[in-house]
Amino acid sequence: MTQRNIKMTVAYDGTAFLGWQTQAKGQRTVQDTIASGIEQLVGHEVNIIVSGRTDTGVHAEGQVINFTTTSAIPAQSFALAVQKFLPFDIKILDSTEVDLAFHSTFDAKQKLYRYKIYNRRSLLPQLRHHVCHIWQTLNFEKMQQAATVLVGEHDFASFKSNNGNRVKSTIRTIYQCALRREGDFIILDVEGSGFLYNMVRNIAGTLIEIGQGIHSKSMQEILDAKTRSAAGKRSCAAGLTLMHVTY
Amino acid sequence: MTQRNIKMTVAYDGTAFLGWQTQAKGQRTVQDTIASGIEQLVGHEVNIIVSGRTDTGVHAEGQVINFTTTSAIPAQSFALAVQKFLPFDIKILDSTEVDLAFHSTFDAKQKLYRYKIYNRRSLLPQLRHHVCHIWQTLNFEKMQQAATVLVGEHDFASFKSNNGNRVKSTIRTIYQCALRREGDFIILDVEGSGFLYNMVRNIAGTLIEIGQGIHSKSMQEILDAKTRSAAGKRSCAAGLTLMHVTY
Repeated sequence: MTQRNIKMTVAYDGTAFLGWQTQAKGQRTVQDTIASGIEQLVGHEVNIIVSGRTDTGVHAEGQVINFTTTSAIPAQSFALAVQKFLPFDIKILDSTEVDLAFHSTFDAKQKLYRYKIYNRRSLLPQLRHHVCHIWQTLNFEKMQQAATVLVGEHDFASFKSNNGNRVKSTIRTIYQCALRREGDFIILDVEGSGFLYNMVRNIAGTLIEIGQGIHSKSMQEILDAKTRSAAGKRSCAAGLTLMHVTY
Repeated sequence: MTQRNIKMTVAYDGTAFLGWQTQAKGQRTVQDTIASGIEQLVGHEVNIIVSGRTDTGVHAEGQVINFTTTSAIPAQSFALAVQKFLPFDIKILDSTEVDLAFHSTFDAKQKLYRYKIYNRRSLLPQLRHHVCHIWQTLNFEKMQQAATVLVGEHDFASFKSNNGNRVKSTIRTIYQCALRREGDFIILDVEGSGFLYNMVRNIAGTLIEIGQGIHSKSMQEILDAKTRSAAGKRSCAAGLTLMHVTY
């Protein structure tokens, strides 16, 4: 039987999942839920490769996965066929057949994350799982200026999680780090070659503290310090969405 | 003990509620949940009066309620104090003391409802409880034209629910009935002197059918017919939010 490599774009609401990857048995994870759906369809075990894991409560509008299968189902029919075995909080947006050499983790060139801050006195309950609520007045211009400092190739050691795995290098390239206002929302788009564990939430948390005027250092000083304690607190998971992966 | 009349603005995520008002015992309703929170705070039974009920799955960003109490708590402190006894899907936005004669149902002059249509091929799972998903291409200009026909004082018998209570008159005044595009969303704002049961969802459903090109009648013909069968299907509850009540 011929092996085929299927690539899928996936959206999910991270609220009711304990993140992407199973750490212990009995946890509801996105990976296990999708794998189980595909396995019911194709009738054999599958090993899902992902562009990158997302944490508990983090969402995706354009996560990319791939897996090999011996199934003869037409590539474009996979999306709809798998959907029948999936719960409402996961949606397969499309499916295509790719070269057997394609690997969604290693071949990822760029990732775009969006972080949503809801900046109003009271949090609307309907938004509670999908934004980070900041009730204090934020100095938006100061946040915007600070964000631009991060664009380019830098050592992002200050934004590296203390809990993350050891990484060889903390140097990454950020192509875009832009804030915009949309009504009561402040939207942060960060696009980069790759990200350290929790890097986007650490950047968002730092920008929020700069906007609140409670951070003593400038973004340049924080970046230069190359130590986690120089930056702000990690912001909440609910505000974060993986939007797009470029290959 | 002096009776005081407290008015509150309330937001809620209607997803996990069986609507505003309890029809049978053991149902989780917004009314019972708020009443129970207030009763725990003030130590006596309260009778909550509301601007108007909302159905199962319908949301509110500016619902208005009032209740009388003998409690001496400062009026503006009520919002925060009651919040401690409420779940995360209800938020008291503000509280003020009003004249004993104020009645949130009878004194309501205008109501603004918003209906959110998500018009993209695939529904993002994170939006599933807060939009009406229409995957087909919609003729936005045709919908916009049809919406303007409803502005003014009309007999809205065609948009009256078959399941609703009998009403003396089906004549209502609509001040605003406007559609706008925001990315993948089509947002309908309807403001009126009052609404028949399910009227906004019946209007939204009719506009959607007109946009899909599957409705044989024009909006003027539907309005003139004065019979429910002339209009389109009632659209889903998830897309509807009570935004504001004017007194």
